[in-house]
Amino acid sequence: MKEGNQRIVSAFAPAGIGNVSAGFDCLGLALERPGDIVSIGNGSRPGAELVEIQGDAGELPRETENNIAGRVVQNMLTALRRKDALAIRLKKGMPMKSGLGSSAASAVAAALAANAFLGDPFSKEALLPFALEGERLACGSPHYDNVAASLFGGIVLIRPDDPCEIISLSYPKALYFAILHPDVQIATRDARAVLPDRVSRDVAVMQSSHLAAFIHALREDDWELIGRSMVDFIAEPVRKALLPYFDRIKNASLAAGACGFGISGSGPAMFALCRGRSAAESTASAMGAECSARDLRYETFVSRINPKGAEIIEEG
Amino acid sequence: MKEGNQRIVSAFAPAGIGNVSAGFDCLGLALERPGDIVSIGNGSRPGAELVEIQGDAGELPRETENNIAGRVVQNMLTALRRKDALAIRLKKGMPMKSGLGSSAASAVAAALAANAFLGDPFSKEALLPFALEGERLACGSPHYDNVAASLFGGIVLIRPDDPCEIISLSYPKALYFAILHPDVQIATRDARAVLPDRVSRDVAVMQSSHLAAFIHALREDDWELIGRSMVDFIAEPVRKALLPYFDRIKNASLAAGACGFGISGSGPAMFALCRGRSAAESTASAMGAECSARDLRYETFVSRINPKGAEIIEEG
Repeated sequence: MKEGNQRIVSAFAPAGIGNVSAGFDCLGLALERPGDIVSIGNGSRPGAELVEIQGDAGELPRETENNIAGRVVQNMLTALRRKDALAIRLKKGMPMKSGLGSSAASAVAAALAANAFLGDPFSKEALLPFALEGERLACGSPHYDNVAASLFGGIVLIRPDDPCEIISLSYPKALYFAILHPDVQIATRDARAVLPDRVSRDVAVMQSSHLAAFIHALREDDWELIGRSMVDFIAEPVRKALLPYFDRIKNASLAAGACGFGISGSGPAMFALCRGRSAAESTASAMGAECSARDLRYETFVSRINPKGAEIIEEG
Repeated sequence: MKEGNQRIVSAFAPAGIGNVSAGFDCLGLALERPGDIVSIGNGSRPGAELVEIQGDAGELPRETENNIAGRVVQNMLTALRRKDALAIRLKKGMPMKSGLGSSAASAVAAALAANAFLGDPFSKEALLPFALEGERLACGSPHYDNVAASLFGGIVLIRPDDPCEIISLSYPKALYFAILHPDVQIATRDARAVLPDRVSRDVAVMQSSHLAAFIHALREDDWELIGRSMVDFIAEPVRKALLPYFDRIKNASLAAGACGFGISGSGPAMFALCRGRSAAESTASAMGAECSARDLRYETFVSRINPKGAEIIEEG
């Protein structure tokens, strides 16, 4: 391991889509972009110290112990019984409270960067609990779907047993996503409060069978079935009321050629699953036009799936 | 179409396993054997007429309109606006009220035989509603999982939208099942009465994610994951109380090398999923030994999956 005051290790962790349609609380995927970057360098005193945050418009906690990245790195040092002096710099490259896994990206980037800086004491798999625990700080409960997708990339199915298992799924090469992030505020805690504690047995069966059909269709490149199986019977029916013009935006995306449509995580971002870049770009335009027509501010972008997940982008 | 008083068409429809673990109400599979045979010949008066039942120990209704096979054939004639005189013979080749899809097999065999006798006016897909409607007569509600598996063979996922969709799944070649049919009476209606009308959101997510993992693992020949994902969070916890020595039999099957274990349909039959014939035979012996030790009468058998489903076995 190289030592020296100038050494810096930076990691990028991507945004993602959680709760993918029928995959409420158990299916997530990583997007190519945007994402967060965490850099770790030598600090001035033993332990983790958050020294800089960029791109958050001053909204994130500055105290190391109250910040996701700070907490993740400190917990790793504690687990290793090490007292290295680590200076943490966080560069937010994505909107917060968007439903695109912003806190997961910060947690994962921090874990990966710190691990590399410390000489890789942990495997990538062993970083998952640290990132989850950090994310719990921000959201009240950890989101396995966002954290696992950001860390490992691809589309991941969570089998939430103890210990939880992360299963990487196959998907068509032509899979693209059109993302709409409307200028609407929804706190993750509020989005969970509207969820039903119990569902009918029929709803449970519908959700199960649609998720299974979706996974099968992704594996078999069956685009028609991908579309038909993208139905969320648990969260979307109650959460869409929190999203202005949800039905209009959904209908516009499907009319523009999207295979399916859903809320990303707990919103307010929404996603359309599309076959090919051209369809995704048309869909993004159509979703944006619905917002423009109603004076709702928004951002749209198009992304493929990030197959690798978080990675070290700079070391030296 | 050949005409004449001697003409007879016979169809075989296989038994199967419904509610396969996390696939409660949406996953079924066809077994190689046993199964029912329905023969259709020329009758003595216009319409369907049930003229003989073998192998039911006198338990099934003899009146055409109250018998599953009779009802299916009559409904097909009605839909076709035909008045052919059809004589129906049903040969039960499997135990009734076993949880192995006995009524589904009768309904499917009747539909397939009558269709062939009438010159194939319906596609195999178009026979599904007739078989379902016939099965509803016996069970109060149709079991898509049993009926679709018996008709089409293989492992089928039901996406129970309107119209419902049958999805054929891939599975490992080495898949074998050890079946235990204990001498216990459970009416399908009673088995449904113990089911919870509502489940917690967490249970719904667990069921979904396990079913998705199971389907993925079958496709990828991942035997470890097949075993880990065979958990039913909805029906087994309440239905196992209806089955004497359930936990002992389950544990014995897993100790004998089975990958997973569950209740077939609404019971009392139970199944163990195994890798290879030898493991299935050892498992069947171990399950039988548990019953013998407690003076519980039983039958066991080993079967692969029937990939073809119902078929015409005799025509002339």
